[in-house]
Amino acid sequence: MPESQLTTAVAEPLGNGYDVAALRADFPILSREVGGQPLVYLDSANTSQKPRSVIEAVSEHLAEHNANVSRAMHTLGAEATEAFEASRTKLAGFIGAARPEEVAFTKNASEALNLAAHTLGASLKPGDEIVISVLEHHSNIVPWQMLAQRTGAVLRWFDITDDGRLDLAKAEAENLINERTKIVSIAWVSNVLGTVNPIRQIADQAHRVGAVMVVDGAQGVPQRPTSVAELGADLMAFTGHKMLGPTGIGAIWGRYELLETLPPFLGGGEMIEVVRMTGSTYARPPHRFEAGTQPIAEAVGLSAAVDYLTSVGMDAIAAHEEHLTAYALARLGAEPGVRLLGPSDAHERGGAISFTLATDDGEQIHPHDVMQFLDARGIAVRGGHHCARPLHERLGITASTRASLYLYTTTTEIDALAEGLAYVRDFFGGKR
Amino acid sequence: MPESQLTTAVAEPLGNGYDVAALRADFPILSREVGGQPLVYLDSANTSQKPRSVIEAVSEHLAEHNANVSRAMHTLGAEATEAFEASRTKLAGFIGAARPEEVAFTKNASEALNLAAHTLGASLKPGDEIVISVLEHHSNIVPWQMLAQRTGAVLRWFDITDDGRLDLAKAEAENLINERTKIVSIAWVSNVLGTVNPIRQIADQAHRVGAVMVVDGAQGVPQRPTSVAELGADLMAFTGHKMLGPTGIGAIWGRYELLETLPPFLGGGEMIEVVRMTGSTYARPPHRFEAGTQPIAEAVGLSAAVDYLTSVGMDAIAAHEEHLTAYALARLGAEPGVRLLGPSDAHERGGAISFTLATDDGEQIHPHDVMQFLDARGIAVRGGHHCARPLHERLGITASTRASLYLYTTTTEIDALAEGLAYVRDFFGGKR
Repeated sequence: MPESQLTTAVAEPLGNGYDVAALRADFPILSREVGGQPLVYLDSANTSQKPRSVIEAVSEHLAEHNANVSRAMHTLGAEATEAFEASRTKLAGFIGAARPEEVAFTKNASEALNLAAHTLGASLKPGDEIVISVLEHHSNIVPWQMLAQRTGAVLRWFDITDDGRLDLAKAEAENLINERTKIVSIAWVSNVLGTVNPIRQIADQAHRVGAVMVVDGAQGVPQRPTSVAELGADLMAFTGHKMLGPTGIGAIWGRYELLETLPPFLGGGEMIEVVRMTGSTYARPPHRFEAGTQPIAEAVGLSAAVDYLTSVGMDAIAAHEEHLTAYALARLGAEPGVRLLGPSDAHERGGAISFTLATDDGEQIHPHDVMQFLDARGIAVRGGHHCARPLHERLGITASTRASLYLYTTTTEIDALAEGLAYVRDFFGGKR
Repeated sequence: MPESQLTTAVAEPLGNGYDVAALRADFPILSREVGGQPLVYLDSANTSQKPRSVIEAVSEHLAEHNANVSRAMHTLGAEATEAFEASRTKLAGFIGAARPEEVAFTKNASEALNLAAHTLGASLKPGDEIVISVLEHHSNIVPWQMLAQRTGAVLRWFDITDDGRLDLAKAEAENLINERTKIVSIAWVSNVLGTVNPIRQIADQAHRVGAVMVVDGAQGVPQRPTSVAELGADLMAFTGHKMLGPTGIGAIWGRYELLETLPPFLGGGEMIEVVRMTGSTYARPPHRFEAGTQPIAEAVGLSAAVDYLTSVGMDAIAAHEEHLTAYALARLGAEPGVRLLGPSDAHERGGAISFTLATDDGEQIHPHDVMQFLDARGIAVRGGHHCARPLHERLGITASTRASLYLYTTTTEIDALAEGLAYVRDFFGGKR
């Protein structure tokens, strides 16, 4: 796509000084073409694209400062350690942690949630209850199922209302969170419906019965100003690649007083205090949870991603997404055959918009077909269950198409999506 | 360091056509200065440096092809998936795996060993025995200690002889590997002593009693031509960052028939077959072991690293290291006050050379002091227990200094190390 064309395509007034065209120029991939069409990337809930500053931070680290951390304190080792720990400090600040030692690096949000399940689960007994919800990503379901199997604990879950919100009334009627509840683990923002869940309210309920509140922040942290204290979380999992950072790095945040009581998860170098053949003692958090060589260059990249997000401003990003989400809900909702899933108002909603598409005759078009036809027009969306099969089952469908927005998305791209959907609908309806 | 000076420093005949000067020019960091001195990087057993082709492969992927894999099959997703799976195939070929599906990606070798311990350990009973050795890295000790604690299994270990080899005679006298043995896990190459362990012989013993042979290949795979079949391994852990690849990626290889029988380790997206709230079924290997978004850009970088190693040739790299190790053992061994640890012959020895240093009066100089004084001369070595505290305890010392070599190391750098050690010895001996 020629630069001029790109600029034209996105030079739109958002009315809040948010310069999406300037911002898009920072993301090399956004000037790519796909199949001869300008790329319209609407799959950011799956993984976000990376600004040049992140890519260059990784390269520069590998080319100029690469060494192992902590254990190698020669000059290069000190440089790498400083960069790695600076990333931890920056990330801690970004989510409002009380101190950097509350953040431990993992490989992704899934590992973080497994870490939570393994370490919290060490003290579970048969009959103890774990509460999740039906709208969770598989990463916040399967680890708890496995934990329940290991321990004899019982897995329970919030249902949703028809508009895709947690059904708090039903939960109360069922006494879902009760004196047997030890762990509650809920997504802050749904990766399918965009629903922003009332984490604080649920956390307060969990705390009243002495349960630990785990938050899956994979979708929330990239999109919203984050304060773990305001959320009321005890542990929160999130990941780098959805917030402009590289793949290969995620994190778990925990209240330090809680982290101190948890056993280690993975064993290995750097998570120990003293190793003897007859037994070992473990380092204090966060190092207790960081076995082996860490994603060092990735931490440096993630640090640059946090810088980028901070320079744009998380409030501005959230406002941009709300603006876009409102636009998309209206634009897509007006397309015949489109059934939008999840809350219908853009306020308090993340930028994941899932839907089904039917022909004028009411025939459902398979999301894989929708995805492929859109792809031929350069539009990248996801078709399938988006790692949330139980949610789809609850909605009475097997799959959906998801367009997911981020700070670089434009209304022009939403228009392209809407036009693409009209084309697909008409094609499958025999009108083209 | 000016280019001309670098070239002069390394333009040495190795007699086998191995052009180390040309090769060094591919590694940007090797032309760095540290404290005004040319960098002499002798810490490759801790982490290796990266050639430009690896750094560029990561950058290019992030800038041009970034998308999530498997789950997003739009064009970008297909490109990323193809690159990710091509890396798996390349890595499988590099270690002589029977098929690509025998390789699962992890975040590092430690995670791979924890995966082995958790999945093999699911069937352990009290009284079952796990056999390791006293020369293991903590990553191959702590996961087995934790497993023994969880299951009531007994942890036993090979002792070493005074020259730093596994004491096979003692093991036989103690009936170390016996009908109660379920798992044997041994490093192929010691990260401290350089010892190349007789994996095949031990694997044959393990197999005779029906035990599973796990190999910690973290140091071996980067340095030696690898055939998992010839090693006799059932599972092998290794890591990217020690073999010219990025941080944030490691792998576990396993015989497919074995992998198929193992339960999952981490739960999450992509490792499942069907998820229902009431229970889930799991994908076949390798995906069963790959929960959540994988280190995709890192896999692309690792693929480029394998290409680089292959283009130099693993036989040539091993020969270069043997040549250098022989040179270093002779050169350092001739330095008064240096006590070399581990086997004294370079043949069948990896490129990690650990030692202690004493003044002429016989006073031991602390390895941290040695490391810092060398660092002031631009020489990067590691001082400490190198994540192998039990080995150091067995050797009757608390710490050592380690110089570790790789394909880009030169005899000139060994000379610089020897001269540096002479300086440190004299300084602490009151002679400077």
